[in-house]
Amino acid sequence: MSSKFADRIARVQPSAIRELLKYGDDPSVTSFGGGYPDASLFPAVELQRIYTEVLTTDSATALQYTASAGLPGLRAQIATRMSAAGAATDADDVLILHGAQQGLDLVAKLLINPGDVIVTENPTFLGALIAFNPCQPEYAAVEMDSDGMDVDALEATLRGTDNVKFIYVIPDFQNPTGVSLSLERRKRIIELANEFDVLILEDSPYRELRFEGEAQPTLASLDTEDRVIHLGSFSKILAPGVRLGWVSAAPEILDKLSLLKLAADTQSSTLNMTAVTRFLETYDIDAHISAMRGVYRAKRDLMLSTMAEHFPAEVAVTKPEGGLFTWVPFPEGFDATVFMADHALPEARVAYVPGVSFFPTEQRSNFARFSYSGQSDEEMVDALTRLGAILNEHI
Amino acid sequence: MSSKFADRIARVQPSAIRELLKYGDDPSVTSFGGGYPDASLFPAVELQRIYTEVLTTDSATALQYTASAGLPGLRAQIATRMSAAGAATDADDVLILHGAQQGLDLVAKLLINPGDVIVTENPTFLGALIAFNPCQPEYAAVEMDSDGMDVDALEATLRGTDNVKFIYVIPDFQNPTGVSLSLERRKRIIELANEFDVLILEDSPYRELRFEGEAQPTLASLDTEDRVIHLGSFSKILAPGVRLGWVSAAPEILDKLSLLKLAADTQSSTLNMTAVTRFLETYDIDAHISAMRGVYRAKRDLMLSTMAEHFPAEVAVTKPEGGLFTWVPFPEGFDATVFMADHALPEARVAYVPGVSFFPTEQRSNFARFSYSGQSDEEMVDALTRLGAILNEHI
Repeated sequence: MSSKFADRIARVQPSAIRELLKYGDDPSVTSFGGGYPDASLFPAVELQRIYTEVLTTDSATALQYTASAGLPGLRAQIATRMSAAGAATDADDVLILHGAQQGLDLVAKLLINPGDVIVTENPTFLGALIAFNPCQPEYAAVEMDSDGMDVDALEATLRGTDNVKFIYVIPDFQNPTGVSLSLERRKRIIELANEFDVLILEDSPYRELRFEGEAQPTLASLDTEDRVIHLGSFSKILAPGVRLGWVSAAPEILDKLSLLKLAADTQSSTLNMTAVTRFLETYDIDAHISAMRGVYRAKRDLMLSTMAEHFPAEVAVTKPEGGLFTWVPFPEGFDATVFMADHALPEARVAYVPGVSFFPTEQRSNFARFSYSGQSDEEMVDALTRLGAILNEHI
Repeated sequence: MSSKFADRIARVQPSAIRELLKYGDDPSVTSFGGGYPDASLFPAVELQRIYTEVLTTDSATALQYTASAGLPGLRAQIATRMSAAGAATDADDVLILHGAQQGLDLVAKLLINPGDVIVTENPTFLGALIAFNPCQPEYAAVEMDSDGMDVDALEATLRGTDNVKFIYVIPDFQNPTGVSLSLERRKRIIELANEFDVLILEDSPYRELRFEGEAQPTLASLDTEDRVIHLGSFSKILAPGVRLGWVSAAPEILDKLSLLKLAADTQSSTLNMTAVTRFLETYDIDAHISAMRGVYRAKRDLMLSTMAEHFPAEVAVTKPEGGLFTWVPFPEGFDATVFMADHALPEARVAYVPGVSFFPTEQRSNFARFSYSGQSDEEMVDALTRLGAILNEHI
């Protein structure tokens, strides 16, 4: 039957994230793999009240179909939040998505012919690569340092590469590295996009989870020529299980994305959109986010101090100022995928995401991404201590 | 900016359904357009109890990420229902989707290279065409009669057409015609698919809403060579607002569809999947569906008798045995799109779906689809009476 598959399916292969989500279901394994938020932070009491109220008073509309672009009230709430963060946005500039992941799929559909080039950070979000791949792009991956994407390398890439359609960038607490883009570089990326006439896809699910350092403006707010397509998400600031995100872009782009959304799945869940709108009207989500920041800061601190204590001295872990991940560079020659299969899983009962899948072009094997958001403090310390002991046997 | 768009976007244009959903929001217009179920039939009390319970006792898992294929319990419940309907199905054979519409998008991605041919009924579901179009297929549309797709015409089409990848068929209460496929023809379609080595995409959202006549087996249950990809939906039997559907197919196909689902939007809503699973465990959905059937039968009868009384005698409306739609053929030369814009909307304050958009190849202007599911009895009679008066002035 595979002889029937379209050519694009050659680019659709099982991913490390998918395999790792399976380990997340095994209670004997501590998974630092998926970007699961801390479930104890979900506003469950408030959401229980909201869903009960919505289904008691508004079930006929909340359970029905609605407009494919999403509920106007939710689009307006998001526009207000984006405007307050510096990017003047109207409700009409916002399209509700089934999670920000859907935006990656729809933007690739909108822009990519087979062979067109997407410029990414190196490494970049694996979920973006699997969303882009069915459109058969080529990738140009630009090196990063502790201030994010190297803009001189970006300029050289844009100068030397034909058919670049867009630059994909996660400016805040990048996935997988945890690094944030400096203000100077944000401005330079906008200049370069203008100069080389390419679009920018800004993926911003973690931005509000900054627990230290100074917040930087979004690329959308620095945009001078309507070149930035901005993706946001409720998964990290509210709950992933409602599957709600959004895209904001210039009208000509948003209009086509709306048509692609209608074609892809008609609309997002009316019930979940109604409930999240009501949540934003009723409760103070900024206070909720503020409380989350303190928890994640403590979890990051605990992960880094435990790694510093128990991991081999050669392993210099990065220190993110927000978000859910840290990025662990092992010594050259260490293969984090092989080590996980041979030692971390069977001996330490620990899972992480081997870094190799995050490199779009030349893959590097000596990295791993660790999430500090999804375990209790005790489980985190126990698991990292077990893993450290085994790492010390092999490094 | 449109110079940046991918070639496929030439096939992504505003659709009649999208425009009509907008009229559905104008309270002065009675819309027979969208396939909105009767909101009074939603099991709102039961769903309110379920969501309250889920968010009280299981919020940490119901609001979290889960496996991309969907909750195992929900997959098992669907497999049991499909098996009871004659197609032996395991939980592993089922992938949960964000509505059956998503299945149309994913199956086209799986199978269609630009220029490949999809065989459809003529006319066929507009939402399927807009889902397929971004993959740049060609269409071969096979004529129908009161027993559904003409299988001799199908055979001639398969014999005379290269690159056919699949036959898209809605066997029960077809959208837009309301016609069902006879048992003999179902068997013949399976034979022809085997003979010409093509797949079948069976879209089955209305099947359980049969209120008269004898239920026919699904194509999936008649399948002899694992060629049928079956789409089902909770939108019509439970509520569209939860956005849950499913696809069942051979393992090799389902495995790739699972990867495409992960790439497209990570997973369906954990909260909605948890609630629907609990609903199926707690309540008797068959009793619920049975009650719905009586309501829709009465609505169909009221629509047909009102049309017979008030529409011109030349208009011979079809009589569906289930589902939500009827199909109205106007005399040759009548343009249902122009009439709606010039007369039905401004004078009668009535919307329907002009039939032209449902024809994949050679478009015909003298048809319209009317849904009888979304209005009160009084509103239906008043609106059809108004429309009939104006039709009589023009036919």
